[in-house]
Amino acid sequence: MSTGLNPRRTVAELKELRSLTADENGAQRVAFTKIWVETRAWLRKKLEGLPVEVHTDAAGNLWTTLRGNSERAMLLGGHMDSVPNGGWLDGCLNVLAGVEVLRRISEQYKGKPPVTVRLVDWADEEGARFGKSLFGSSACSGNLNMDEARVLKDKDGIRLPDALKEVGIEFERVKESGPELKNAAAYLELHIEQGPVLLDLDLPMGAVLGTFGVERHAITFHGQAAHSGSTPMNRRKDAFLAAAKMSPEIYRIADRSNGGVCTIGSCTTKPGIVTSVVAECRITLDQRHLDAAALGRMLQEAKAASERFAGEGNVRVSWERLWQIEPVLFNPDLIQMCSDAISETCGKTHRLPSGPLHDAAEVARASVPTVMLFVQSLHGISHNKIEDTKEEHLEWCVQAFDRLAEKAMGYVKRET
Amino acid sequence: MSTGLNPRRTVAELKELRSLTADENGAQRVAFTKIWVETRAWLRKKLEGLPVEVHTDAAGNLWTTLRGNSERAMLLGGHMDSVPNGGWLDGCLNVLAGVEVLRRISEQYKGKPPVTVRLVDWADEEGARFGKSLFGSSACSGNLNMDEARVLKDKDGIRLPDALKEVGIEFERVKESGPELKNAAAYLELHIEQGPVLLDLDLPMGAVLGTFGVERHAITFHGQAAHSGSTPMNRRKDAFLAAAKMSPEIYRIADRSNGGVCTIGSCTTKPGIVTSVVAECRITLDQRHLDAAALGRMLQEAKAASERFAGEGNVRVSWERLWQIEPVLFNPDLIQMCSDAISETCGKTHRLPSGPLHDAAEVARASVPTVMLFVQSLHGISHNKIEDTKEEHLEWCVQAFDRLAEKAMGYVKRET
Repeated sequence: MSTGLNPRRTVAELKELRSLTADENGAQRVAFTKIWVETRAWLRKKLEGLPVEVHTDAAGNLWTTLRGNSERAMLLGGHMDSVPNGGWLDGCLNVLAGVEVLRRISEQYKGKPPVTVRLVDWADEEGARFGKSLFGSSACSGNLNMDEARVLKDKDGIRLPDALKEVGIEFERVKESGPELKNAAAYLELHIEQGPVLLDLDLPMGAVLGTFGVERHAITFHGQAAHSGSTPMNRRKDAFLAAAKMSPEIYRIADRSNGGVCTIGSCTTKPGIVTSVVAECRITLDQRHLDAAALGRMLQEAKAASERFAGEGNVRVSWERLWQIEPVLFNPDLIQMCSDAISETCGKTHRLPSGPLHDAAEVARASVPTVMLFVQSLHGISHNKIEDTKEEHLEWCVQAFDRLAEKAMGYVKRET
Repeated sequence: MSTGLNPRRTVAELKELRSLTADENGAQRVAFTKIWVETRAWLRKKLEGLPVEVHTDAAGNLWTTLRGNSERAMLLGGHMDSVPNGGWLDGCLNVLAGVEVLRRISEQYKGKPPVTVRLVDWADEEGARFGKSLFGSSACSGNLNMDEARVLKDKDGIRLPDALKEVGIEFERVKESGPELKNAAAYLELHIEQGPVLLDLDLPMGAVLGTFGVERHAITFHGQAAHSGSTPMNRRKDAFLAAAKMSPEIYRIADRSNGGVCTIGSCTTKPGIVTSVVAECRITLDQRHLDAAALGRMLQEAKAASERFAGEGNVRVSWERLWQIEPVLFNPDLIQMCSDAISETCGKTHRLPSGPLHDAAEVARASVPTVMLFVQSLHGISHNKIEDTKEEHLEWCVQAFDRLAEKAMGYVKRET
């Protein structure tokens, strides 16, 4: 169907990129480093020969524009940066598939598609160096908290504004990138799933419904230290017992929530010695759901359970919020088109939420109709050198992404 | 009944000792320190005027002997050393009550009781400085592991043998103290309970059945790290979930054991971050019971439960033994006499095991018929400056201990 589309070229370019930017521990394209700058120079070379305009915005995002008959634009997005020791697909698959789609559209429409098509390589999606992900896209969407970002430091004590200056970005002006979204009428992002859902279902691809909202808390149970030999069981105020009861409980809460996930990621005990009942136990709880009301219910159920377990064990409980973000829902029309594009490519489709955040969430929060297309991850693993996807699936996802782009151009034209 | 016994004098001497050896944080009579040496000099002064012989053995234990018509000896024991910031009764109550009993016997029998009576102040019961409790009594009983003790260091890196040399004790000869037990035919020790059992029962005193055996293990569950957002609940290998299930389970195991206690004192998680399922969770389990078979069953039940929870959660479990000691049972005849002495003093009695270890356990392991008498602890707390016992109970316990000594002298005479 797609004239001139060559998914095998995308796979070849991914391998070329890996040979240039990865070592024996994995990809090393950390944002704002020398390798990242070189990666972008390599990317620009790939764009040579296309009738496009290329520039970097005030936040360091790289925009490639194929001007169409309408100023209204369909955006394709991804990120060339990686975590340290990262995988060969996370982020760059999206950009290189976008390059291939640009080539196909440019060829098919002889350099002048019905609507403008833009490819964006977001700056510092991973946040690996400063601990703040989605930097470039949140600057562009206007959601970046400048006061929080201004004081971020890397492990060597270098401030984010100083690191940005090194690559020609002026921190105080990064939100001037906002107008880039002015004519955006659709945003499409391809990504590896980074989880095992498609793998378990034996499906190559899925249409993404949105990104989970997150409630992240520390929960501390306050009991009383007591000698392990001389304190009868019924006299104990055992902070660990109350905290431990939370673990099976969050599985029940997630089960009732219809699609949410809950994780206790750490547990610390005081005094934490073998001969004493635990006086204080702190656990962290991360809860995620695509539905804001369901997320709220999961949180309330966890709070109620913690109070119940504290009461049963004659201990106190206190909660501290660590972080929170609302769910971001993608555009229903684009989700349908994405699902259709997947079916047409491989005969079966699926819809699923995204647990991890993506730049697409920032674009959606800026009210641009958005959708993502996930391709299966082998091992269900990402942010690791063993990250991988079957080559057949890689080729299919470029095809499906291209089909989606064609449908979305029609959508942009209609909605304009 | 007891001619000349003056329990109020014992309470007064305890207060005098506190004024000399405690600061605002509690008692500071740590073994082998200057204050401990001064404490012993003070104790020797209290013994002046009695027809006794006083000497220190090869392990630093202080022996006071009132020679009787028979060489067969009834021993009274305690320890003047304390933990740092300790209580005013732990250990020294035993010794000072023993001094008062010696005074009464000496007076009543005009310096020549029917059997020999000896008071021992054990060296370094607490093990506060080198982490090895029951030093003097285990050297005397022959159970001290010389190879383990030889390499013990305090927090400043000073070796135990060097610290002993400072107070005139030659490490390699400490077991030469063994013959001190040669004629021992009974051993009696008074102690505060250090737990809340008598407090909860509103009883002043109890006869002790023996000291708990202990099984101490580290249990590690091995799961798999996974992203908290992208990993469905049913795909997780959550090491914390399996470990957490152990906490309510050990309460059920202790409940079934008829008198045992189980404690999970610490929990550590790896990677221990809010956004990851726990890959590895290590907990410590301390199990105690007076009955060796019941202790063995508790351990087997915990192992079986850990395997079951590991299986349910698709994780692995491994066990590592940290420490172990068998239960030590006291002498039934002496337990009966102790219980009678308590009843005669305050009208009600009780029998209970000891959770913490005591020097009495070492003496019993050396096959000397042994019993302990516990007096109620307020707050059920020890090893703390708030450790306390009602003055009325202190006076009663000196009376009951004296009654027990009189009965035990008859026992020693009969058994000889």
